[in-house]
Amino acid sequence: MRQYGREDLELLFRTADVMADRLQRAFLRRPLDGRIMMTAFFEPSTRTRLVHETAMLRLGGTVSGFADPSVTRAEGSTAESDEDILRMLDSYADVIVLRHPTTGRPAELAARLTGALLINGGDGTGEHPTQAMVDLYTLYRRFGSIDGLRLLLVNDLRMRCVNSLLLGLRNFDCEVSAVATDGMDRPEGEEADWASDGPPVTIGGSVVELLPKVDVLYSSPTVSLRSAAGDRTRPLTIDRRLLEEHAGRHLAVLHPLPRKGELATDVDDTPFNAYWAQATYGVAVRMALLTLMFDA
Amino acid sequence: MRQYGREDLELLFRTADVMADRLQRAFLRRPLDGRIMMTAFFEPSTRTRLVHETAMLRLGGTVSGFADPSVTRAEGSTAESDEDILRMLDSYADVIVLRHPTTGRPAELAARLTGALLINGGDGTGEHPTQAMVDLYTLYRRFGSIDGLRLLLVNDLRMRCVNSLLLGLRNFDCEVSAVATDGMDRPEGEEADWASDGPPVTIGGSVVELLPKVDVLYSSPTVSLRSAAGDRTRPLTIDRRLLEEHAGRHLAVLHPLPRKGELATDVDDTPFNAYWAQATYGVAVRMALLTLMFDA
Amino acid sequence: MRQYGREDLELLFRTADVMADRLQRAFLRRPLDGRIMMTAFFEPSTRTRLVHETAMLRLGGTVSGFADPSVTRAEGSTAESDEDILRMLDSYADVIVLRHPTTGRPAELAARLTGALLINGGDGTGEHPTQAMVDLYTLYRRFGSIDGLRLLLVNDLRMRCVNSLLLGLRNFDCEVSAVATDGMDRPEGEEADWASDGPPVTIGGSVVELLPKVDVLYSSPTVSLRSAAGDRTRPLTIDRRLLEEHAGRHLAVLHPLPRKGELATDVDDTPFNAYWAQATYGVAVRMALLTLMFDA
Repeated sequence: MRQYGREDLELLFRTADVMADRLQRAFLRRPLDGRIMMTAFFEPSTRTRLVHETAMLRLGGTVSGFADPSVTRAEGSTAESDEDILRMLDSYADVIVLRHPTTGRPAELAARLTGALLINGGDGTGEHPTQAMVDLYTLYRRFGSIDGLRLLLVNDLRMRCVNSLLLGLRNFDCEVSAVATDGMDRPEGEEADWASDGPPVTIGGSVVELLPKVDVLYSSPTVSLRSAAGDRTRPLTIDRRLLEEHAGRHLAVLHPLPRKGELATDVDDTPFNAYWAQATYGVAVRMALLTLMFDA
Repeated sequence: MRQYGREDLELLFRTADVMADRLQRAFLRRPLDGRIMMTAFFEPSTRTRLVHETAMLRLGGTVSGFADPSVTRAEGSTAESDEDILRMLDSYADVIVLRHPTTGRPAELAARLTGALLINGGDGTGEHPTQAMVDLYTLYRRFGSIDGLRLLLVNDLRMRCVNSLLLGLRNFDCEVSAVATDGMDRPEGEEADWASDGPPVTIGGSVVELLPKVDVLYSSPTVSLRSAAGDRTRPLTIDRRLLEEHAGRHLAVLHPLPRKGELATDVDDTPFNAYWAQATYGVAVRMALLTLMFDA
Repeated sequence: MRQYGREDLELLFRTADVMADRLQRAFLRRPLDGRIMMTAFFEPSTRTRLVHETAMLRLGGTVSGFADPSVTRAEGSTAESDEDILRMLDSYADVIVLRHPTTGRPAELAARLTGALLINGGDGTGEHPTQAMVDLYTLYRRFGSIDGLRLLLVNDLRMRCVNSLLLGLRNFDCEVSAVATDGMDRPEGEEADWASDGPPVTIGGSVVELLPKVDVLYSSPTVSLRSAAGDRTRPLTIDRRLLEEHAGRHLAVLHPLPRKGELATDVDDTPFNAYWAQATYGVAVRMALLTLMFDA
């Protein structure tokens, strides 16, 4: 997300508006006709893969690739290097969507490409920039503006979607609080790094006390942790009762999905639910991104 | 299959005639251009997945999705709920083809969808309606009319394809006998339910004695069973010798495939073989279904 | 490769020239519009699958199929016969790309098809003809002509890509030497068979002594072998030092990829590297092959 400034993001939002609108109507043009997207998922992720494929198909492009790293293991022995695989895709595809378990690897591999564009579809504990674009677009659509919003981030703060969201929020004038589940705090250095560039972030505190004062409650996907002693640290569960007792009327709950126990299904039918809209915007935001990347 | 009456099925047949004819010629139009089909296979089935993808592609549409439930398990831990996955696909796709291991689940999930159409590609021991449409179309093509036909169903009568075929046959005036392999009988209640609405069904008897009197021999895909005592119950094997000794000249053997031991390959080159035509009609019938669903 | 003569190959090369050129420009026509390619990979191979899918998509066609044999195993029990699966694909697809672990099986299955064309994407220790077409095209592009070239084949000489390359080279006037890693020699009979039809092949000798005298060094993908005594036989490693010390200035190193230890990455940035061009030509050669097969 470091490579995108406020103007880039605002252009993306306006383009996504057009795309979201186009999804409702018959297609008038196919700007990516003849283009090929290759998905290279060295770690499976059905959501991220399918949302990019959908965006590409809606723009008239075509898709191929692999959904699972096991497929890349040739007969016999060990896997081919990811660099050789990316170089292969570079000569086949116009754009590659890469999911990689190793933090920072997409940037290294992107530097080797000569023809294809690269989209980072999530790297280790690094970044998930297109998810952050969707998160920000969801705020823009729900509130009209991101400036002035007060956000509370909860649960696993080490997740790549949190990293990318924090980097994106630096472009806007908003207040951020963050409360981690035990053992899921952001590393010290990263907090400082982020804080030095962006708006104030307050780490820690009580969710129940903070909830009435914020506009947005954002939870990352979170899995319970087993400690050395064998105890389980459970994430905060966002449910209807918590929200009805403590949240302001206009609170929006965001979650990139998939969810486990940290977001109860009884929130689905409340006005706090912004995560389905968020999921739906996924297609339009990737369509906007592809259109801008290809200058199409 | 309960939602389709005789007029629906006859319209489907006439449309499939057009589609089967169109497959032989150059494409003049692409009625599903710009539409996306997502395959959601929570249980693998290459035939069902590929036949739907083929039908969609032949109509000018595009395809994406997942062939295998393992792909939907995100990194770490447990699977996302199928409802959340379907809701995601609802916002990506125009039509979803769902294969699910749990009986009745497609109907429950369909009720949650707001945008996409849903095709049941087989659910547990419930239904496999598009297979029944292909079976019925095969009879219509082979005999000109389904009315008046005498059918003998053999082997595993608990299969979803049998359920759907029986429901479909209620719309026509035909006689049905059914002889299960030991341990593969239909549950009592279901027989009664079906019998009360449709034409007479005779359960049990000798295949060898019934064979000369019927027009159609239908076997479900069947796997041998191991009893508590460790014996194996083998399905009836339909082979050339059985047919040449006992079947009438015009007998048609149907089988949805894939086959194991219950249908010998020496039937392939006999005039009894209607199952390859049946397999071939699979594309045209799904093309007809998609065309009608989309009113395209 | 036995079914292609010199004129066929030269036509393929000229067509691939057109395709390689077309890849650089906007698409003017979509000769395979409305056609479906099905990939049937009874053994996974990401490279072979994706290069064929890319070629099909670049020609305006569509793709579907399965990347992995596990997908073809229906619920419960044993796999369907490959013949039944191919017959299914025959009624769905216009062209099938088949990868099969059993030598000779693609030719047997091709004889059963009634509608679809078949491309052998590699069979056991048999052939990999489209790889050989790419290898030959790479020589044609690099040297202008294959006649007169001196080739040295090293490492695992039992591989299917070597079989197909040797069969292809029979159509040209060139000298071939071959030095196997211990335990990776070609079977006696095959050498004789090949030698009787084609140009002279010298088996054995020292790579270091042969290297200065050849134009092309070709290594197959090679895995180290564990002997009965537990020792490992390692393949020859082609690296920058070996080439700079012993190779002629114009030597071209070819390798079908993926590579393990037998081709060092320090060759990548040398002028000896012809394997990236070879990988890149993969798409244009398959586009040419498809265009010629469909007479499109």
